[in-house]
Amino acid sequence: MAAEQDPEGLAAARPLLTDLYQATMALGYWRAGRARDAAEFELFFRRCPFGGAFALAAGLRDCVRFLRAFRLRDADVQFLASVLPPDTDPAFFEHLRSLDCSEVTVRALPEGSLAFPGVPLLQVSGPLLVVQLLETPLLCLVSYASLVATNAARLRLIAGPEKRLLEMGLRRAQGPDGGLTASTYSYLGGFDSSSNVLAGQLRGVPVAGTLAHSFVTSFSGSEVPPDPMLAPAAGEGPGVDLAAKAQVWLEHVCAHLGLGVQEPHPGERAAFVAYALAFPRAFQGLLDSYSVRRSGLPNFLAVALALGELGYRAVGVRLDSGDLLQQAQEIRKVFRAAAAQFQVPWLESVPIAVSNNIDEEALARLAQEGSEVNVIGIGTGWAHCHLLSPTQGSEVNVIGIGTSVVTCPQQPSLGCVYKLVAVGGQPRMKLTEDPEKQTLPGSKAAFRLLGSDGSLLMDVLQLAEEPAPQAGQELRVWPPGAQEPCTVRPAQVEPLLWLCLQQGQLCEPLPSLAESRALVQLSLSQLSPEHRRLQSPAQYQVGGRPALSFCPVCPCPYHAHRSPSLLPAGGAV
Amino acid sequence: MAAEQDPEGLAAARPLLTDLYQATMALGYWRAGRARDAAEFELFFRRCPFGGAFALAAGLRDCVRFLRAFRLRDADVQFLASVLPPDTDPAFFEHLRSLDCSEVTVRALPEGSLAFPGVPLLQVSGPLLVVQLLETPLLCLVSYASLVATNAARLRLIAGPEKRLLEMGLRRAQGPDGGLTASTYSYLGGFDSSSNVLAGQLRGVPVAGTLAHSFVTSFSGSEVPPDPMLAPAAGEGPGVDLAAKAQVWLEHVCAHLGLGVQEPHPGERAAFVAYALAFPRAFQGLLDSYSVRRSGLPNFLAVALALGELGYRAVGVRLDSGDLLQQAQEIRKVFRAAAAQFQVPWLESVPIAVSNNIDEEALARLAQEGSEVNVIGIGTGWAHCHLLSPTQGSEVNVIGIGTSVVTCPQQPSLGCVYKLVAVGGQPRMKLTEDPEKQTLPGSKAAFRLLGSDGSLLMDVLQLAEEPAPQAGQELRVWPPGAQEPCTVRPAQVEPLLWLCLQQGQLCEPLPSLAESRALVQLSLSQLSPEHRRLQSPAQYQVGGRPALSFCPVCPCPYHAHRSPSLLPAGGAV
Repeated sequence: MAAEQDPEGLAAARPLLTDLYQATMALGYWRAGRARDAAEFELFFRRCPFGGAFALAAGLRDCVRFLRAFRLRDADVQFLASVLPPDTDPAFFEHLRSLDCSEVTVRALPEGSLAFPGVPLLQVSGPLLVVQLLETPLLCLVSYASLVATNAARLRLIAGPEKRLLEMGLRRAQGPDGGLTASTYSYLGGFDSSSNVLAGQLRGVPVAGTLAHSFVTSFSGSEVPPDPMLAPAAGEGPGVDLAAKAQVWLEHVCAHLGLGVQEPHPGERAAFVAYALAFPRAFQGLLDSYSVRRSGLPNFLAVALALGELGYRAVGVRLDSGDLLQQAQEIRKVFRAAAAQFQVPWLESVPIAVSNNIDEEALARLAQEGSEVNVIGIGTGWAHCHLLSPTQGSEVNVIGIGTSVVTCPQQPSLGCVYKLVAVGGQPRMKLTEDPEKQTLPGSKAAFRLLGSDGSLLMDVLQLAEEPAPQAGQELRVWPPGAQEPCTVRPAQVEPLLWLCLQQGQLCEPLPSLAESRALVQLSLSQLSPEHRRLQSPAQYQVGGRPALSFCPVCPCPYHAHRSPSLLPAGGAV
Repeated sequence: MAAEQDPEGLAAARPLLTDLYQATMALGYWRAGRARDAAEFELFFRRCPFGGAFALAAGLRDCVRFLRAFRLRDADVQFLASVLPPDTDPAFFEHLRSLDCSEVTVRALPEGSLAFPGVPLLQVSGPLLVVQLLETPLLCLVSYASLVATNAARLRLIAGPEKRLLEMGLRRAQGPDGGLTASTYSYLGGFDSSSNVLAGQLRGVPVAGTLAHSFVTSFSGSEVPPDPMLAPAAGEGPGVDLAAKAQVWLEHVCAHLGLGVQEPHPGERAAFVAYALAFPRAFQGLLDSYSVRRSGLPNFLAVALALGELGYRAVGVRLDSGDLLQQAQEIRKVFRAAAAQFQVPWLESVPIAVSNNIDEEALARLAQEGSEVNVIGIGTGWAHCHLLSPTQGSEVNVIGIGTSVVTCPQQPSLGCVYKLVAVGGQPRMKLTEDPEKQTLPGSKAAFRLLGSDGSLLMDVLQLAEEPAPQAGQELRVWPPGAQEPCTVRPAQVEPLLWLCLQQGQLCEPLPSLAESRALVQLSLSQLSPEHRRLQSPAQYQVGGRPALSFCPVCPCPYHAHRSPSLLPAGGAV
């Protein structure tokens, strides 16, 4: 994870990136002599996002980075002092200055695992004051990362395993770090690359991009490049004037297409030539700055054929407006005819890329099998040749998605919560007036039960001190909402929560982003089709072992029987 | 803006927070000898967000901070070199190392101004290569800031001018900086404060917060505070054991309410006592950890009355679940009865705060006039006494909003674009296959026309070299979509675009965040009710002066006649 070790990245979430009430509660705990009480919180969500039946756990690497660097600086403490009561005991601020996470232990779902309602993504234990202060930054770091990763995974499921997906939503992201987080975790969720250079620099995400309309429209055609000569691809022989050669090809192309040679925009052609001079091995044409059929396409063909004479192959064209599928089909026909006409077989399979507000629905249309043109696109940033080499052939599909992957417009927040479950080893729960917001008390363990074919049966929560379920042995479990427990005999049992930080120390190196990305695809493959389905899926069950005290009518999957010891005296509910 | 001058804040948007295609185009421009061509881009949006008829310009202060610090570090250039072709001329990278914004000029809508479709929020001119590189970070900094500010302003319009609005959505924000941006610009848009401490430290946003359910549930009632004594508010006389005094009051309260003295949860009461010991002048009760009626409310009253004996007044209660309005009405009745019973008149008007997924619709219900209880709330973070002093009386309404202000679920992105309009003084336009995505060429000026009563009539765009409209003089303008121009005689004419940076130099100090926040309210007050309406508003008109070349069928407000000189040779469209 060398690319991820960026000292400035450490500051992405600073200790004061928190709600003020964490600090006021800290003072309350301190004043009550309880700052160092042992406490445990769980971070989980109550409903899967986007109407699906799964989510992906993500953000752990950011949490670890944050926790390991956690320290209140003098300026932070001074700011807190300025907003807390003026007569606050100075010893409290001394205590704040001494804080770090050296007594904090974190268990977590590995990044890239499947996550389900009620199953902790993080279990955070340590001194009450410290683990309370961590609430807001941990929620901020986990919620959006998991949401974006899940969103990206859904888009990957729609696109199928072969197509290349590029995230290009930085400009529409909710703030600079919204963009960085989106780029990182859409890669983790199954995208192939990002347009976001910083995500490449700081997180090692593969980056991609070529040219925009502004590049095309900035040329009028009267510009004279300082060096118009291009050497052959093989490196031998004299260079040629690419613009002059493209002009010759333009006449052939226009004759072939039945266009006047004056019709294609000279500025667009000059832009293509300029781009080809800079990227002869990665030339791509953006076709829709003026008119695809009468300008973009003939100009692209002229430059691509001129490059071809020198031994270079164009890597693609892109469309960013209009009816993408229909235009792509027409372009593919033109490519085939031109390949035959000019005897350049590779032209037939030049990838056609599309972008323009592609969401799940539009992606499904573009990704459907059976459309003769194996189109598909990319967006604002277009893959370099190393991402889309001509050897991959015309069947390569690349899809660029921006706003709808980064902002998650179907549901822009996951709604994770961070709830106290134990203090001093004693379980804690909230009842509230809203059954959905009640919590499940006690320090817990979580297991995933698998069938003999390796498919997922259900997740099970139990008290941490109970013996773990055993493979091949019958288990009594309360399924969500059931009045009676059922029995299940798993062929395999996987503990879900991994000891990540112990007393502030990283227990083992975190997997790389690419490794977590591979885990996502493995995890999804274990999910049965009815749970993986994006629309109206069957709900995956999270059951509870009987010793747990279930909350009564919660949509998170716990059954109605409750430990009276947790209720207020007198049983007030 | 001392609070905003944070050196780390400068790094929030770094030069590599950009799409890779900006860098590939930079190489293309450089190879074509055009890196230093004079270019101008406009940043604007095409449709107002949320179905409304206005937006607010925001994010300028972040753009200025970014532009003034813009410099590619060695590590940045090295990273770019690693993703560009290996045979790229090293002189290109030397050129990148030399870049800054010392030749960049920016005109802008002042932060907090009303913004309408097609009117530039920013005009950015300078060397082509540099102003191209700025595209993505400027879009990222302006789009979300303007979206959140607009969202906040809508919520402010619904809540009315008197109510206090607290933003508390950090935990649900799209990434850490999503949270910081949201807190900053929801304040600008009309919120009073934020729970986000970092927004207070870095941006000077007032911060607020008290306690969460975890604080309440962390207490069992068996805890012994190291110092249970509290001195009287006046500072004279001996301290008293607050827990013991609350226990005495509890018996009175339970007798009054007809509850058994064992019913209220002892841990909740211990938590209230602990909080009151830390914040005797800002005691607030969070009532719904167990049961509002049978536990939270009697416990609050016991502690508040004990504090009252010592001369302190509780500052509020909060509800975070269930039917907020109905519970608040019941609580208000209890407060009134208890105020009479125990002869403590101030108890009658203790503010009742509510929070819990409040969106525009829920806010409208809570803010409606005529509900007997003048309730209303706040959220995860609750105002300190300095934000909500008891002297403001029971009519004070405070509303806490999280997810629905920060993530803008109605529309999570604004869709700003950054389009090239001129190179070397010559206009540039894009036609594309999609009329909506066509651009309006040429360097422009923008004016706001006002009637004699100071209300806004329309915005007008024209070529920069045309004479400005004059107050009292008739003006021919093409309204959006019209076949013929109309005439308008404004009583006042305001130029809209402010020269912000000239050749990289800040022309005058930026207004403070609070000043921009005041401008928002002034701006909204100038908007007529039919344009300010949030549902199905009348569309505010942005007209064009005849010399502009209008795009043909664009929904942005330009009429169909086009300068032939801008079309490609042969007229391809």
